[in-house]
Amino acid sequence: MQLAVDACLEGVKKGQSPFGACIVQGGQVVACTHNHVWLDIDATAHAEVCCIRQACRQVGSVHLTGAVIYSTTEPCPMCFTAIHWARIERIVFGASVEDARSFGFNELQISNATMKDVSGSTIDIAGGVMRDEALAAYQTWREQSGKAY
Amino acid sequence: MQLAVDACLEGVKKGQSPFGACIVQGGQVVACTHNHVWLDIDATAHAEVCCIRQACRQVGSVHLTGAVIYSTTEPCPMCFTAIHWARIERIVFGASVEDARSFGFNELQISNATMKDVSGSTIDIAGGVMRDEALAAYQTWREQSGKAY
Repeated sequence: MQLAVDACLEGVKKGQSPFGACIVQGGQVVACTHNHVWLDIDATAHAEVCCIRQACRQVGSVHLTGAVIYSTTEPCPMCFTAIHWARIERIVFGASVEDARSFGFNELQISNATMKDVSGSTIDIAGGVMRDEALAAYQTWREQSGKAY
Repeated sequence: MQLAVDACLEGVKKGQSPFGACIVQGGQVVACTHNHVWLDIDATAHAEVCCIRQACRQVGSVHLTGAVIYSTTEPCPMCFTAIHWARIERIVFGASVEDARSFGFNELQISNATMKDVSGSTIDIAGGVMRDEALAAYQTWREQSGKAY
């Protein structure tokens, strides 16, 4: 998670939104990056989606079986479902979707727990890990007049 | 929707999965493409996500306000939420998520109607448009020994 926070802060320095993610498979970091929505002019370029794209290409497979994704904020339903498609087995996140909403992001109101309950997903989820560090990144982003989407 | 079906069939010819999408904004087609999961080695490269990426870059904005997306199959929750983030106002789809499951795709069991109900989204949704043509593309894909993911 420290690597995800570092990627998040690197993104904030570049004027990006305060989100970072890191994917670990077989004890190895296979991808780690920040949100690229503004940089790439791409509404889908959330940190988790960018990280999955990198990881798939890195390992040469569309399935990242057994992998864990660390995300500074709870994945939105787009990212939750991207994680499902990639066969990632565990999500560890810091701040919540509600925290992201409180900073102005136009999140759909569905937690990962609800997505799991409603969809039949068997993914393992752990939240609140290094939430303080994730929230500090939002504060830095806000002080730099970061724009929510 | 005919353009989305055409893109879908073009993808199937190239060995891709049987999904196509087209985005129209202000009476203009701004993007139209097929699923690229196998081609790009990218679990997130569904037709709708690829189409949103193209459209955002085409119009130079992460928001596609007022746009309509035509998709040969009901968007999965990843694509539904990508559509939300892109501020697309209407989804028109052909086959259903259940149809995709019946052809072996590992879909989460959430319809767009459920996603809308649970999330507070205000998007407009119309399904079953040219479903027969969408299902015919699945059949062609199956005859070519297409692999589901």
